[in-house]
Amino acid sequence: MPTTTTAWALQAAGADLTPLTFERRDPRPGEVVVRVTHCGVCHSDLHAIDAAGAGMGGLPLVPGHEFVGEVVGLGEGVTDRSVGQLVAVGNIIDSCGECAACLGGDEPYCAQFPLQTYGGHDPYDDTTTRGAYADHYVLRADFTYPLPEGLDPAGVAPLMCAGVTVWQPLSHLGVGPDTAVGVVGLGGLGHLAVKLAAALGARVTVFTTSAAKAQQARDLGATDVVVSTDEAAMATAQQTLDVVIDTVAAAHALEPYLGTLRIDGTLVVLALPGEGWHLDPMSILPRRRVMGSGSCGRPDTAAMLAFAAEHGVVADVEVLPASEVNTALTRLRANDVRFRFVIEHGR
Amino acid sequence: MPTTTTAWALQAAGADLTPLTFERRDPRPGEVVVRVTHCGVCHSDLHAIDAAGAGMGGLPLVPGHEFVGEVVGLGEGVTDRSVGQLVAVGNIIDSCGECAACLGGDEPYCAQFPLQTYGGHDPYDDTTTRGAYADHYVLRADFTYPLPEGLDPAGVAPLMCAGVTVWQPLSHLGVGPDTAVGVVGLGGLGHLAVKLAAALGARVTVFTTSAAKAQQARDLGATDVVVSTDEAAMATAQQTLDVVIDTVAAAHALEPYLGTLRIDGTLVVLALPGEGWHLDPMSILPRRRVMGSGSCGRPDTAAMLAFAAEHGVVADVEVLPASEVNTALTRLRANDVRFRFVIEHGR
Repeated sequence: MPTTTTAWALQAAGADLTPLTFERRDPRPGEVVVRVTHCGVCHSDLHAIDAAGAGMGGLPLVPGHEFVGEVVGLGEGVTDRSVGQLVAVGNIIDSCGECAACLGGDEPYCAQFPLQTYGGHDPYDDTTTRGAYADHYVLRADFTYPLPEGLDPAGVAPLMCAGVTVWQPLSHLGVGPDTAVGVVGLGGLGHLAVKLAAALGARVTVFTTSAAKAQQARDLGATDVVVSTDEAAMATAQQTLDVVIDTVAAAHALEPYLGTLRIDGTLVVLALPGEGWHLDPMSILPRRRVMGSGSCGRPDTAAMLAFAAEHGVVADVEVLPASEVNTALTRLRANDVRFRFVIEHGR
Repeated sequence: MPTTTTAWALQAAGADLTPLTFERRDPRPGEVVVRVTHCGVCHSDLHAIDAAGAGMGGLPLVPGHEFVGEVVGLGEGVTDRSVGQLVAVGNIIDSCGECAACLGGDEPYCAQFPLQTYGGHDPYDDTTTRGAYADHYVLRADFTYPLPEGLDPAGVAPLMCAGVTVWQPLSHLGVGPDTAVGVVGLGGLGHLAVKLAAALGARVTVFTTSAAKAQQARDLGATDVVVSTDEAAMATAQQTLDVVIDTVAAAHALEPYLGTLRIDGTLVVLALPGEGWHLDPMSILPRRRVMGSGSCGRPDTAAMLAFAAEHGVVADVEVLPASEVNTALTRLRANDVRFRFVIEHGR
């Protein structure tokens, strides 16, 4: 039986999100129905809203791709999830399962169709996926993750996008106690990069344009804070780091951060500015790398959650009732958030 | 007693190289005097000649930074070299020995002064170094490498710059039998990248703009050849490689080669085009890296020579008498070389 769900949706260009009621499909074999309790408000939701408002992507648009909820229905053959179980879901809800990427546990890079949680094209029924700014969601059980015991569900929701995005390079580059890590930008991604890198035992330097964020950075686990407009401080930071996680979405030069890397260091760029970057050969000469990275596949997502549970790492969130989602979006647009909004359904 | 040496030098802007006789200093303690027998003609020699001709860098300019010769004199305290011994020398002849790079065996990245074999500023006597287009050279014994038994000296000379430059990423990225390596460009660097990667057991794909080079590439050890202007062939090569060694100095787009990398693959850029590159975020998204790399420090240089000896790898060279160096330079400028000119002194 389809589930009637209420969502906050962009239904007209330039408008606020407004309530939309629609039916979620009956779960197919292998799928579960989730009653969404908490959904993170990701910066990319703003981009999607702006793009849909500008005619790129259809309306209505229901954002939301990092969420936690309760299993309330099971499709045929689902044996490893149970009604009442709490689960977390990220930005990918399906993939072909057969390509090299999928077989390697890198479903976000599926050669056929990494199915995005919202705004993606569902190849089974030729629809556009609608996200978790809605109070129910239906997806393959294999793309849900049991909520770890002891973690606040609201704080876990942002782990499913922001968290996995920073976890990916930290884990693949072997960050640990012997690693000096830099984090550029202290927003949704950046604050989780600091927390996770510190929990991995790394020494963490935060680069921020705002001196006012120094204490926040230290509270999150940073050892050092460099105000990136302070030339003397930047000069002192040259060639001191092994890995720099750059979370800044706005256009910016990579060279100052490449300069902070030791020989063999890696600058990881997590945002995807449309105009790209200029790369100066001299800035990467001593075996430095510039690396791109997206979100995690299923094995890495599960590993991130296990690590978060072991170390008590969740996002620092401000929880608002779903009915205040427009406030969250407006404040996020103004960078007035510490460090992630989460909307709570049913309030 | 100083050694009188005869060199081929740029002595006036725009002129051919002409003979120049000057004195090499007495060896300082720890130094050796080398009678140069073979010196490679590196593409960067052309750049140095052009730059000096344009007023950047002083005259006379004596190029030459990959050479082989015979030890003919020993400075005080040199016990690990002997008169009559054959040695090879590359593009760095001294460094501070105290910084992190030097202590890590990465002398080319010395924080104080990696002393270049020619055109470098010698901090001891405030002179500009003159290279091995001269029949004698004086340098620290620690920056000479015993010529491996059984290798042709003329073929070893280019190993000391072109060879170490391609060896550096191959060894640091762990290229071996399980690695699929691409090589872009089949010149001095590229042909050695093919030989060394093949000797390491890798499967090698050569990208070239010239279909005529396909057989040459296979003769060097390449398994596959892709003509980079053939769109269908480039499409087939997408996501097939782990490491791509890009040796092309001319301005070019990185994206087509980034696309040939698998997830976690690395594009190594060895040339340093002044204008740099544009980097498209999507092209590196699946944990791909763009890595810069220069020449090798002493430990890696010694390892490269040992590997070359074990596998019988030397450069494919065309040897000309030193008196024909201008012919070599003219033909190199026209890319009329297979694959490296070496000038022989005393002929």
